[in-house]
Amino acid sequence: MTPVEVEVYDTTLRDGTQGENIALSVDDKLKITRLLDDLGVTYIEGGWPGSNPKDAAYFQRVRELNLQHARVAAFGMTCRVGGDAATDANILALLDAATPVVTVVGKTSLLHVREIIRTTPEENLRIIRESLAFLKAQGREVIYDAEHFFDGYKLDADYALQTLQAALDGGAGVLVLCDTNGGSMPWEIGGILRTVAERFPGVRLGIHCHNDGEMAVANTLVAVRHGVTHIQGTINGYGERCGNTNLCSAVPDLELKLGLRCLPEGRLARLTGVARTVAEIANMAPNHQAAYVGKSAFAHKGGMHVAAIRRNVDSYQHIDPALVGNKMRVLVSDLSGRGNMLSKAEEYGQNLTADEAQKLVARIKELEHRGFVFEGAEASIMMLIRRQRPDYTPPFELIDFMAVVEHRAGRGMFAEATIKLRVNGEEIHTVSSGNGPVDALDHAMRKALTPLYPPLAEFQLADYKVRILDGQNGAAAMTRVLIDTQNGHQRWSTVGASTNIIEASWFALADSVEYGLTHVMGCC
Amino acid sequence: MTPVEVEVYDTTLRDGTQGENIALSVDDKLKITRLLDDLGVTYIEGGWPGSNPKDAAYFQRVRELNLQHARVAAFGMTCRVGGDAATDANILALLDAATPVVTVVGKTSLLHVREIIRTTPEENLRIIRESLAFLKAQGREVIYDAEHFFDGYKLDADYALQTLQAALDGGAGVLVLCDTNGGSMPWEIGGILRTVAERFPGVRLGIHCHNDGEMAVANTLVAVRHGVTHIQGTINGYGERCGNTNLCSAVPDLELKLGLRCLPEGRLARLTGVARTVAEIANMAPNHQAAYVGKSAFAHKGGMHVAAIRRNVDSYQHIDPALVGNKMRVLVSDLSGRGNMLSKAEEYGQNLTADEAQKLVARIKELEHRGFVFEGAEASIMMLIRRQRPDYTPPFELIDFMAVVEHRAGRGMFAEATIKLRVNGEEIHTVSSGNGPVDALDHAMRKALTPLYPPLAEFQLADYKVRILDGQNGAAAMTRVLIDTQNGHQRWSTVGASTNIIEASWFALADSVEYGLTHVMGCC
Repeated sequence: MTPVEVEVYDTTLRDGTQGENIALSVDDKLKITRLLDDLGVTYIEGGWPGSNPKDAAYFQRVRELNLQHARVAAFGMTCRVGGDAATDANILALLDAATPVVTVVGKTSLLHVREIIRTTPEENLRIIRESLAFLKAQGREVIYDAEHFFDGYKLDADYALQTLQAALDGGAGVLVLCDTNGGSMPWEIGGILRTVAERFPGVRLGIHCHNDGEMAVANTLVAVRHGVTHIQGTINGYGERCGNTNLCSAVPDLELKLGLRCLPEGRLARLTGVARTVAEIANMAPNHQAAYVGKSAFAHKGGMHVAAIRRNVDSYQHIDPALVGNKMRVLVSDLSGRGNMLSKAEEYGQNLTADEAQKLVARIKELEHRGFVFEGAEASIMMLIRRQRPDYTPPFELIDFMAVVEHRAGRGMFAEATIKLRVNGEEIHTVSSGNGPVDALDHAMRKALTPLYPPLAEFQLADYKVRILDGQNGAAAMTRVLIDTQNGHQRWSTVGASTNIIEASWFALADSVEYGLTHVMGCC
Repeated sequence: MTPVEVEVYDTTLRDGTQGENIALSVDDKLKITRLLDDLGVTYIEGGWPGSNPKDAAYFQRVRELNLQHARVAAFGMTCRVGGDAATDANILALLDAATPVVTVVGKTSLLHVREIIRTTPEENLRIIRESLAFLKAQGREVIYDAEHFFDGYKLDADYALQTLQAALDGGAGVLVLCDTNGGSMPWEIGGILRTVAERFPGVRLGIHCHNDGEMAVANTLVAVRHGVTHIQGTINGYGERCGNTNLCSAVPDLELKLGLRCLPEGRLARLTGVARTVAEIANMAPNHQAAYVGKSAFAHKGGMHVAAIRRNVDSYQHIDPALVGNKMRVLVSDLSGRGNMLSKAEEYGQNLTADEAQKLVARIKELEHRGFVFEGAEASIMMLIRRQRPDYTPPFELIDFMAVVEHRAGRGMFAEATIKLRVNGEEIHTVSSGNGPVDALDHAMRKALTPLYPPLAEFQLADYKVRILDGQNGAAAMTRVLIDTQNGHQRWSTVGASTNIIEASWFALADSVEYGLTHVMGCC
């Protein structure tokens, strides 16, 4: 394996979670760890073990993953002012994380030394040096994050360089220069890096930027052009305030524009998939406009652009989207709808006449107008195609259902659903409880159908998502439900929409079961 | 009035609307025109009059606005290959727009000359020169957009410079160099601009960037450092694919970091308001992470950061947020320390002892572990603070509720809820129907409480959001509900979480009403 020319240090799980509205469970963090390892980053910063119990649990469980590329790093501060690194609670928590790598952040700026940690310049140098030396002596690879490096340098360049020397004396393997407040400009980064590189020849330097001036990616690239070989950032640029360096832009810029290898051969094409899956795990709406990985990144709307693209595909795109796992899209008019439907049906082995395709497009437009969205719900499209066939017999038909949710003082919450279905001319009437009304309805339907269709026992609800489409109408708003179902081999998605969340869920549940029985199991 | 040092040319209404999911009516465009004029930009590009009837209507109506700062520009292409500018439909549409300024785009790149418009290099120079000369002779101020300038320059520098000369010969007042495909790097922009500035001394140069490498703002700034005095971009960076230069970042960077006046004195503080209002008009979710103008741009979540800010407000911010009309916020979450809670309580006029703050932080961490998220739900934080006071009497207490959703063959959907509350020692038992179970529950609660607390009639549910936290558990997953309530003057947010969506909604609804009665109306 060719070694990378620029190390990628991902801090989505630590600095990324300091972004507003981002909260990751331990399971979420482990899933993201696997994705990052698969992408081939060099380091994964998993969390701050001293700060909360969730991160400590993560470091225990991450050891069970058999990572192929990435080394896991635990993050923490230098020891307390006046204290001893060997007995400092934070430093010991770092050791307890039992990671091969520890990253320690220390103060560069005299403003912070004097006003925030309130100590002398000398004591700050001591806690940097001794914290690192202690961890290094315990066999850890030590990375030093020089907080506020550029602001501190502008305040007192000599002292800023002394803090780096202290970290180096303590055994730091990488000196990471942080633009913590995110306000530096590329030419400042370049100028200061020239001095640092001269002062510390042969030392591995890193860069950690924030995006408060919308310069994080530019600053990172400029740093690399000045000799930095270790870049820190997050997937989708998540992070405190305006976020960290967006690795989904910086990595393809470095690989495709500067020709510098950051990931193992062939892994860049996984980037779009990683970006979108991480957004889904973090439950953040993906940024469609994002460079390289956004849904709109290679989407063409202007008529002049589309006409040009039909003559030369590269006329309005700066790279081949396949390099980052993305694809070109032409945002089309109503006329091309029939063509889309025909190719989608062919993809699923269904033949449609032009007239059938036209009717289905009209039906889909009507349903989308009511709040359905079929883009992510191809199983629901297939059910529309099947149901319009004169010879189609559905595996079941709904007659009635009822869902009840009760809160009774002293007895807590209770949810129950009844359902009446017709199968082969017979009525089946069942009841079940559940964790909530939709769960109860799902159980009641399975109770009714599983005796007749045993494969249903293998279907699992893998994902259940709710979107409110029209926030302005409060609790009476249109609600869309997307359900993913899997049976071990296959996974399929269905959609439902209604002002009543239970009805929307029912539509998606019924499509999910009907598609599974007819298409996946071939029962009917 | 001091003249600006860098002219701002806004193309939100033209290039911005080529972004996916952005569509503006004529009224929307007029509203945005007023906002931009009020912000003090130099030019507003209103549309492409030859391309659609909506833009033609805009140019008619914009004349009635009494703009104070901005000159309105109409956009179009050079005349057709082999044609005469004086009779070209597109050019005549530009004249019909009757704007003081016209902006004409022409081809720089030989790839586009040969493959897209399919003509000779000489004919391309002729149509540039003659299109501009004709418009200039009609008394228009003419701006020339050199499409694909940087890509074209890399392909054939000499020809690229000839196209600029043709535009200058035709009477262009500004030569705007466009990075149309958005893939250029700052050092390329800088290098090429040095040559252009040498070749055309004394000529006003402009820059128009796209963000496909996340470099649009950096490229714009670098161009200004190389002598450019006219920058094109859009509010919030809207635009085709990854968008245009985000003026909401580029303008404050230029004013605050480079010290160059772009807007009339004092107008920069309107930027955040303009950014958010334009997002609202365009019906786009605002980007909270956006530099300078985002809701999170000055929001602090990490406990260490918040503790530092309480000692020195500038320790983790690069500028005073008031300069751009934004403000600092402290977020409360499981990453918080006591300082976050103390700051938040002070913001709401509540005094807490250190011990109370510590207990509340512990309580919040426990609730967040269960799925609550308090960051966006400050009214729920206030209720936690109030409820831990020994002297607090809640305006109502829940005893029971029940929600029923029914589907009956031939009768469709039906939702009903009952609720039993205790107020001042008395039980109130009501029932209501609704569009769905939560809507029914909301109505039943209002029916119970409004006779006792008449101000409740003014409370409206303004937004209702549902997030499923752990998709893997299917319909039994943890569900989080966020509710926004308003009463005409104020708006507040509350949160609830449960595996049962109805219970999660109840928690958020109850907090919303209790907060409204106690804090907003001061009823209790």
